[in-house]
Amino acid sequence: MAAREVPNIVISRLPLYLRALEFMQREGKQVVASRELAERLGVSSAQIRKDLSYFGEFGKQGSGYQVDHLILELKRILKVDREWDMALVGVGDLGRALVHYEGFKGKGFCISLLFDNNPEKIGAKINDLEIMDSRLISELIPKWGIKIAIIAVPPQEAQGVADELVKAGVLAILNYAPITLKVPKHVKVQYIDPVVHLQRMTYYIGGNN
Amino acid sequence: MAAREVPNIVISRLPLYLRALEFMQREGKQVVASRELAERLGVSSAQIRKDLSYFGEFGKQGSGYQVDHLILELKRILKVDREWDMALVGVGDLGRALVHYEGFKGKGFCISLLFDNNPEKIGAKINDLEIMDSRLISELIPKWGIKIAIIAVPPQEAQGVADELVKAGVLAILNYAPITLKVPKHVKVQYIDPVVHLQRMTYYIGGNN
Repeated sequence: MAAREVPNIVISRLPLYLRALEFMQREGKQVVASRELAERLGVSSAQIRKDLSYFGEFGKQGSGYQVDHLILELKRILKVDREWDMALVGVGDLGRALVHYEGFKGKGFCISLLFDNNPEKIGAKINDLEIMDSRLISELIPKWGIKIAIIAVPPQEAQGVADELVKAGVLAILNYAPITLKVPKHVKVQYIDPVVHLQRMTYYIGGNN
Repeated sequence: MAAREVPNIVISRLPLYLRALEFMQREGKQVVASRELAERLGVSSAQIRKDLSYFGEFGKQGSGYQVDHLILELKRILKVDREWDMALVGVGDLGRALVHYEGFKGKGFCISLLFDNNPEKIGAKINDLEIMDSRLISELIPKWGIKIAIIAVPPQEAQGVADELVKAGVLAILNYAPITLKVPKHVKVQYIDPVVHLQRMTYYIGGNN
């Protein structure tokens, strides 16, 4: 099955299904109906069935999905049945928080290279990882074969860092800076944008503050 | 129009429309077709038209939307045509990064109260904001009338903090800790989860790392 055949919007929903299923797995659930998964996620069960149907048959009509099996299959489809090394650029407050973040464990990701352009930080260590000079991005990223990078620099530096990362062979960027990045079509960018999440909640708050 | 009538999933998409429109506004665009907005966002133009139709008529058939007008309307609908004070709990690396975050400006949000339970931090100031003792959550949050809080504490403390915030009258929580919070039905929670965003990109990366 060629990757191109699955709409981006379907791929974007699979991590949400995976997260909900892993939560159910921790609760001890072994089988789940698409309707139940749908209720947790606030989507329709028809959508879940249709999304999953791009990748084959995962459950018998009426008997629900095997939670463990579906988790393994989603991890395989999303290619997080392995661990991806990532480069982090910008070791300020946010960067340090990300190095210590406990949420990457077991989810397919590991921060393996740190970069900063501040001479006072270069050479220092966090969690046994040495902070490298950002000027070495073009050398170290290809050497390590790293394809994923996290940008945690100030907004005015983010585009320059993105350009460097793309030249070094990075194919996926998680951007924490509040700006929209321009990258070539073959590079994926995702944004961590707390504003979008906050704006999803204010609608429901009554009154004028 | 009662809030209940609009599906959650529709509300969850409005901030994405708003963000794309604000980006187009900065590019100098005055009118946009739903098809163009749809292409930017990777959704269908029918969906955008249907989502917006819950709130009235925003464009004439075939002539597109006035960018400035639609931005104002979306801000009004999402109640971000004002500025919401927020409380931030947990002033570690991440918390400090959030206090300095430039992306809240002009988007409807402002961090106005800081809490931490570390005696060495209490009383210190960041950006002219004094860090308050977390034990004062139940007193200061109602006093300030704060309805939105950000949780940036370690995962093992997050549920306890959420319970305190809910008791103090908070109605919306943005949670950075990698755990699922249990809250009453009247409280909204959104998660900042870098893993979901990373897993949306790995699918597209060829090879085995």
